[in-house]
Amino acid sequence: MEFNEKTISKESIYQGKIIDLEVHEVELINGESSKRELVFHNGAVAVCALTPDNKIVLVKQFRKPCEKPLLEIPAGKLDQGENREEAAARELEEETGYRAKSLQWVTDMYGSPGFSNERLSIYFADQLEKGDMHPDEDEFIEIQLFSIEEIAEMLQRGELEDAKTIIALQHMLLNYNHSK
Amino acid sequence: MEFNEKTISKESIYQGKIIDLEVHEVELINGESSKRELVFHNGAVAVCALTPDNKIVLVKQFRKPCEKPLLEIPAGKLDQGENREEAAARELEEETGYRAKSLQWVTDMYGSPGFSNERLSIYFADQLEKGDMHPDEDEFIEIQLFSIEEIAEMLQRGELEDAKTIIALQHMLLNYNHSK
Repeated sequence: MEFNEKTISKESIYQGKIIDLEVHEVELINGESSKRELVFHNGAVAVCALTPDNKIVLVKQFRKPCEKPLLEIPAGKLDQGENREEAAARELEEETGYRAKSLQWVTDMYGSPGFSNERLSIYFADQLEKGDMHPDEDEFIEIQLFSIEEIAEMLQRGELEDAKTIIALQHMLLNYNHSK
Repeated sequence: MEFNEKTISKESIYQGKIIDLEVHEVELINGESSKRELVFHNGAVAVCALTPDNKIVLVKQFRKPCEKPLLEIPAGKLDQGENREEAAARELEEETGYRAKSLQWVTDMYGSPGFSNERLSIYFADQLEKGDMHPDEDEFIEIQLFSIEEIAEMLQRGELEDAKTIIALQHMLLNYNHSK
């Protein structure tokens, strides 16, 4: 099957700081037309970071869309044209103060491919060094450290609800050998 | 730290078929104000389904926001007031023709908590029975079956890019014992 949906016409609804909204009329595979509501986002990066004593670095912050705080791996939006790996190292240091010697790419993910093009790249980092935090002005975050065993239990109970965080931590459990 | 962002005022930008967009002025923890662009969504469900001969059921469909087809576990939007587990069973059967005797809850996830409240519930199903497909009118999907080994390799190479799909399949690799 040839998969494609060609845009016939589009309307720009909103251009914001973080997202733009467009509505496209598209031509479906069967020749009929349909509407697609599209939320455009510049992309993001996140880092699963493991301290020298095998603790995972999570950040707790209030997420207005969810109306509650979530525990997440350090993450942030890409600046225009920014290199993803450099952005990931920058976000880790800004949010947590930890500097990573090197990052390993884990995977890219679309969190909401039904309506948004937000593509987020996940990295893994160990061999961390502690520096100073300097979060963005409107970011209020609390750093929390967890053992691998605590992470495994939180995942098992479904307590972690942020998609990038679940992916990064399950990947770590599947792939890294954590000798203490 | 008390985590909260109280809405001071809000503006409705768009009310669509799948999403609504609002911009809220919020009061931050330090008393200052900031804007939040919020994409409201009614929620969704997805099913990681394993056939009697241990194949994973994935669906390939064109995702307009990403401008490419993605391989995903069967999923769909919640109807207003619909029970999540019933919706998951319904979506599995509509998209793939497979009926599940029972579903096990895996986790809930927010795919894009920075700007959207979309909460998606993931279930696991085995003991499937094959019936007939009847996808929505504007849905064009192709069913593909993969062995557990193929899934593990695709995850390792970062070839699966849909967040709910990665989460569900990693969870399966971590938790289920697949005797052949």
